Amino acid sequence: MVDNMKVAVIGVSQTKFGEHWHKSLRDIALEAGVGVINNANINAKLIEGLYIGNMSGMFTGQEHVAALTADLVGLSPIPATRCEGACASAALAFRQAYFSILSGCHDIVMVMGVEKMTDLHGSGVLTTLMGAGDKEWEALIGMTFAGLYALIAKRHMDEYGTTQEQLALVSVNNHKNAVENEFAHFRFPLTVEDVLKSTMIADPLHLLDCSPISDGGAAVILASEKKVKELKIEKPIWVAGSGQASAPLALHDRRSITQFDSTIIAAKQAYNQAGIKPEKIDYAEVHDCFSINEILAVEDLGFCKKGEGGRFVEENKINTQVKVNSTGGLKAIGHPVGATGVRQIVDIVKILRKNNGIGLTQNIGGSGATCVVNIFKN
Amino acid sequence: MVDNMKVAVIGVSQTKFGEHWHKSLRDIALEAGVGVINNANINAKLIEGLYIGNMSGMFTGQEHVAALTADLVGLSPIPATRCEGACASAALAFRQAYFSILSGCHDIVMVMGVEKMTDLHGSGVLTTLMGAGDKEWEALIGMTFAGLYALIAKRHMDEYGTTQEQLALVSVNNHKNAVENEFAHFRFPLTVEDVLKSTMIADPLHLLDCSPISDGGAAVILASEKKVKELKIEKPIWVAGSGQASAPLALHDRRSITQFDSTIIAAKQAYNQAGIKPEKIDYAEVHDCFSINEILAVEDLGFCKKGEGGRFVEENKINTQVKVNSTGGLKAIGHPVGATGVRQIVDIVKILRKNNGIGLTQNIGGSGATCVVNIFKN
Repeated sequence: MVDNMKVAVIGVSQTKFGEHWHKSLRDIALEAGVGVINNANINAKLIEGLYIGNMSGMFTGQEHVAALTADLVGLSPIPATRCEGACASAALAFRQAYFSILSGCHDIVMVMGVEKMTDLHGSGVLTTLMGAGDKEWEALIGMTFAGLYALIAKRHMDEYGTTQEQLALVSVNNHKNAVENEFAHFRFPLTVEDVLKSTMIADPLHLLDCSPISDGGAAVILASEKKVKELKIEKPIWVAGSGQASAPLALHDRRSITQFDSTIIAAKQAYNQAGIKPEKIDYAEVHDCFSINEILAVEDLGFCKKGEGGRFVEENKINTQVKVNSTGGLKAIGHPVGATGVRQIVDIVKILRKNNGIGLTQNIGGSGATCVVNIFKN
Repeated sequence: MVDNMKVAVIGVSQTKFGEHWHKSLRDIALEAGVGVINNANINAKLIEGLYIGNMSGMFTGQEHVAALTADLVGLSPIPATRCEGACASAALAFRQAYFSILSGCHDIVMVMGVEKMTDLHGSGVLTTLMGAGDKEWEALIGMTFAGLYALIAKRHMDEYGTTQEQLALVSVNNHKNAVENEFAHFRFPLTVEDVLKSTMIADPLHLLDCSPISDGGAAVILASEKKVKELKIEKPIWVAGSGQASAPLALHDRRSITQFDSTIIAAKQAYNQAGIKPEKIDYAEVHDCFSINEILAVEDLGFCKKGEGGRFVEENKINTQVKVNSTGGLKAIGHPVGATGVRQIVDIVKILRKNNGIGLTQNIGGSGATCVVNIFKN
């Protein structure tokens, strides 16, 4: 068992998320990287390693993004490693950085998530995203991620009586929360009616149940306890627990499609390491790539019982019991796929710098084949 | 500083490398994964994490390969993470697995490198491989990797008098060594004349100066010292040192193109951790993606002085002073790009299981923007 509270986040940054037609992958990476060094207010020469979350070279044709970014940000020749687990890529990068510090090999490490999705268009983006699913059994029959999550939503509605209005309320809440978020892709409020009247993408998911295609980057700097003390860091936010699990890529290979075992297992590891129960979480950034996924998340993370996620949303417990996606979620902030996992951590850290409490991030890859859960404390 | 000799390789496997028209990425991953569990002769339930090296989703359209492989090999729901650093992807995966054990989070971890390149053809493969270079400054002017290494070779010839015959001797030696390697893509000997008469690809590199496009997988299992004792592992091969460094992707951004600073820095870290000097290395698996790169490697790893690599080859010191690529190298074994870094480790471990000594692996990404050096001991 790993001691917790040995590694802290000491710097955070993110770029605005959105359609950045005038910016390249490297522009975004540079902005996030320089931003986080400024925010940590440390000498960049102290940074000993770089981990990058980036989902797919298919978006831009550029692989080897970690070494590229190390150079851009002025960090060469430090070791630079890209991690990929579809939309959970950035949380995987975070976790490897965390391990590299716990291992004693590094003391200060930068983690960045970055994705430039809009260089590809339409079907190219959907095809690339389906690289996160099972290519032979899902992509080649024409399945899309909206389709996969629609199957999950339909089944959840059938098994538990979850309603389209409850799904819509997820988007309504997240859009409301993003109005004040200067980095969000969308900063306008929605009504349930707006959601239900928007184009049907894959029944029962309307356009406004779906997170958008966004460009953006986010970065954090992690430091060992020793360095936090040495550098007299104000308001370090400690990693209290971390968990990760995998599951079969294809939905049909799961024992259930209305729960993500990867979330349940990763959350259990993180809660155990942090020594807390789900009811202790004050703030949670969860992976609402589609509205149904926030409902799965509140169930699988243990905020309510399985099947009660829809009611949990409807009864506004996503604001009263635990503040879920209080900065806007993937739906309204945007979802540059390889960046989201670090963006979630940036938001939790910003919240905890202002408020005492316990924060959690849940980052999902694909339709749940990868999940990383992290817990943070003051 | 990390204690060395705390993590050992306890199992190895590789598939045959070559053009596997009848096998998919998953077939190859399954074969490597089952093979390494058999070789380690442990209960697969003891494996706590999986790291995958895989260069590009552009080869097959499949991203999220780590979770996919965990499922195929029967390891779900363990955490599964893909690492990418172009042709150094597998060594990066190995290094993260090593960190995960040193961190105390895991005791037994599988690492696999896997690539299925032949699903794409001709220019598709070259375009995908150029994702390892600087897309904006190298790929978009039509540069290929043969072209980049040709520039390096030309410059090395100009600065140090390295000859085409010396380059050819690298391929001749590696082909000779691969004749007995049942997993090698090519098992026939070459003469210097064969190399010099083969098609010119990018002056001065002939076809037979270039490693081939191959499919294949390789895997190892790592264990903590505690588990090595508990499981009474026979002939564990210990990680004595590990280093990693980055450099700018584009050749024109380097201070020199006849040396790879990433190799020099990574090697220094690994030698320091192992507490040895280069002359102590008995066996070295180095990254001869093109013949010139083996000459750079013997120089940058400190086996000879800068500029003397050509003569080092010509005087057969790659067999007498240190056995370099004694199983065939990338040239003859083949180079499934994301698999090579682990294949090198597999070969060093097999050698050290039979012979006492010290082995080194050097895995390069792109034209030297990533380098990982590992040192192994009985």
